[in-house]
Amino acid sequence: MTKGLKQRIIEQVAEDLEKVEIALEHHLNPNLELVRQIASHLLFSGGKRLRPLLMIHSARLCGYNTGFEIQFSIIFEYLHAASLLHDDVVDEADIRRGKKAAHTKWSAPKVVLTGDFLMARALDIAAKIKEPDIISVIAKITRDMSQGEIDQLTKKGRLDLSEEEYLEVIKRKTAVLLQGGCQCGAILAKAQKEKEKALNQYGFHLGMAFQMADDLLDYTASAKDLGKNPGADMREGKLTLPMIHSLANAEPDDKKWMQDAIAATKFNPEQFEKLKEKLYKYKGIEYTKDRAREHVKKAKACLDGFGDCQSKQLLCLIADYSIERKV
Amino acid sequence: MTKGLKQRIIEQVAEDLEKVEIALEHHLNPNLELVRQIASHLLFSGGKRLRPLLMIHSARLCGYNTGFEIQFSIIFEYLHAASLLHDDVVDEADIRRGKKAAHTKWSAPKVVLTGDFLMARALDIAAKIKEPDIISVIAKITRDMSQGEIDQLTKKGRLDLSEEEYLEVIKRKTAVLLQGGCQCGAILAKAQKEKEKALNQYGFHLGMAFQMADDLLDYTASAKDLGKNPGADMREGKLTLPMIHSLANAEPDDKKWMQDAIAATKFNPEQFEKLKEKLYKYKGIEYTKDRAREHVKKAKACLDGFGDCQSKQLLCLIADYSIERKV
Repeated sequence: MTKGLKQRIIEQVAEDLEKVEIALEHHLNPNLELVRQIASHLLFSGGKRLRPLLMIHSARLCGYNTGFEIQFSIIFEYLHAASLLHDDVVDEADIRRGKKAAHTKWSAPKVVLTGDFLMARALDIAAKIKEPDIISVIAKITRDMSQGEIDQLTKKGRLDLSEEEYLEVIKRKTAVLLQGGCQCGAILAKAQKEKEKALNQYGFHLGMAFQMADDLLDYTASAKDLGKNPGADMREGKLTLPMIHSLANAEPDDKKWMQDAIAATKFNPEQFEKLKEKLYKYKGIEYTKDRAREHVKKAKACLDGFGDCQSKQLLCLIADYSIERKV
Repeated sequence: MTKGLKQRIIEQVAEDLEKVEIALEHHLNPNLELVRQIASHLLFSGGKRLRPLLMIHSARLCGYNTGFEIQFSIIFEYLHAASLLHDDVVDEADIRRGKKAAHTKWSAPKVVLTGDFLMARALDIAAKIKEPDIISVIAKITRDMSQGEIDQLTKKGRLDLSEEEYLEVIKRKTAVLLQGGCQCGAILAKAQKEKEKALNQYGFHLGMAFQMADDLLDYTASAKDLGKNPGADMREGKLTLPMIHSLANAEPDDKKWMQDAIAATKFNPEQFEKLKEKLYKYKGIEYTKDRAREHVKKAKACLDGFGDCQSKQLLCLIADYSIERKV
């Protein structure tokens, strides 16, 4: 089924995607060679372009179709890439999208400045629209994202993270950008406030589902599919929902063992497998899947007020795919 | 004379400065404790608030005086602070404003994210104005500044940097922010295009003079006045105008000795003194002072079209002070 979903989405977006790639490349150019290298390393290493696609089809769902939505959409890929670059320095993650993280290939300072450059580039494109509401949304996105990252950083290693705190982190870290992208699509189309709000909420629920699925994949996916070793969150001391729920429901002995395993900075593959067993035993995996499915359902419900069209179908497919994907 | 200038400026801006401090504090609040700590470490360690003051008095010079110019002006201090935070990671400089650089007290990731947060905060305040031209200026500022920093980074250690390349770096690194701040003052006041342009050019020339004076102070000031050891640029492999001009005019033997001294990663105080002697001998100090004075003269000439008032006097005083200051 998953392959079917993915295939159907790809067929529908192939033409747009090609144009998005050209726009992403074009707006880096002409520029300093170093920026091009570092930004390209990340930007052109197989991202899904989820954020531009969401924005493009939110705009079209509201009747906008001048072609400019393609140029405009790359704002959200640049913001995403800027955040990943700064996040790479933050996480000291070794591998991103199957390639070495930018900061292991270039010095942290260069990576930081390239992130700043992409952020500035995004703002530059946004400023051209001369639409204050769009700037307000982008300001909110950047504020929430930086707060979310800081929040996550200060919570690293905390074994008593609550579900509520987790939800707040992923909202800021992931959902806000998808939410803002969809909302900007509606604003670009000069849609009614009601539709703008519906797309904002679609993006929010999709973002929550998407991040929960990501956090699940960090336990359940293979290194090959993931492009990096599973268990990365654990190794970085990041508690995510599967673990939070399992810890809350584990028997005392198991809870103690799990906490010790997480606190240990290194653990071997067998320990990781044993930890995964606990996540199934205490239904952390199942619970997270259920929550993600609820968000997908809510996301799709947000589109009820829109007439049927290709963009609506696509946004529904993307919502389904967000939790069915293997990578 | 210098003390007189400084004193006169301080007397005129004391009241505004107090309000700027409150606004700077207010817009960080309520926020994550960590951000407050890191941002405060830099923000409240004796900065001159040059950028807010320039913006405030540019607005007033154009007849704006609602009081809102104070709130608005802190955008430019936040942008400046964000850039310094990312620059601290970049430069691996040990000391900034006499305190330890933020990244030696906190981890680089935390410092990077706090910089992002301040940048987002600046955008947030700017977005509230709903004035597209202001957003365009801020987009240009952030783009040029990040390019300037990257440019400087890639030029580090280059012994053949030309005066032209140096001018391009300092324009982006420093002048653009002052220039943009002054221009935004005019836009806020809905001034005629001609006045907006004049204030933009005032900010540009002031910024160039200011950075040249900074680069001079790195050779001529005492560690006590500077709040850090002089010669920092040299140690980081940053060639600035006093050295560029001297190298271009040095006799072959001296040139070779100077280049070797710069290339050496460490040098002792005697070597530094000897290097300074060469800068006087080959008139690098004098030449840089002359260029800076020219920019001050041009900056003041940009204000000719404005009627006499307190703000005009103050902007002239600041221009004079930019090259007369000891720190």
